[in-house]
Amino acid sequence: MQRSRARAPCPAHPALSQAVDDLLRCGICFDYFSIAVVIPQCSHSYCSLCIRKFLSYKTQCPTCCVAVSESDLRNNRLLDDLVKSFNSARQQLLQLVLDAPSPAA
Amino acid sequence: MQRSRARAPCPAHPALSQAVDDLLRCGICFDYFSIAVVIPQCSHSYCSLCIRKFLSYKTQCPTCCVAVSESDLRNNRLLDDLVKSFNSARQQLLQLVLDAPSPAA
Ligand SMILES: [Zn+2]
Ligand SMILES: [Zn+2]
Ligand SMILES: [Zn+2]
Ligand SMILES: [Zn+2]
Repeated sequence: MQRSRARAPCPAHPALSQAVDDLLRCGICFDYFSIAVVIPQCSHSYCSLCIRKFLSYKTQCPTCCVAVSESDLRNNRLLDDLVKSFNSARQQLLQLVLDAPSPAA
Repeated sequence: MQRSRARAPCPAHPALSQAVDDLLRCGICFDYFSIAVVIPQCSHSYCSLCIRKFLSYKTQCPTCCVAVSESDLRNNRLLDDLVKSFNSARQQLLQLVLDAPSPAA
């Protein structure tokens, strides 16, 4: 059976990961969305806590400046699911890197 | 060990791709979201055309049956961006597979 299938990730990973990674981050804390909410007026999404904190200081979208009040915010649960899937896939990738023999030059 | 640097995608791709792929598909047409909209009441997302067609027949969310009218729908643009990024990354992966020499057994 397949002797040494474990190996370093192929060169396509950065492309796949980076593009999706960037989009799954909150524009306020730059971390992955945590309880994502969307502003229906402009379709920008943030972590629930991040945008609520921001709105208590200034009642507008931090990206496009449209007027927003806290009651406008709506959950965007698919983003939470995407962050979860993406992170568990990343964990698998990381494990694969750690398990891989160091590449011969 | 690695004789040739060009190679078929590593085993982690299916995990990364499949999980994200599933979530980026519309529950009505099962294709990738095309102009994604979210139902604010329940946070379920669909293609704009798919859900509008459905609502003309039955005014509820096809997944959770909450009452919905067309005017409730809101764009969920981040999903469109994710579909775009995901598809272009997939294209790069495909190219990599096509360019790779068939793996030695
Ligand atoms: Zn945040
Ligand atoms: Zn905005
Ligand atoms: Zn659809
Ligand atoms: Zn629903």
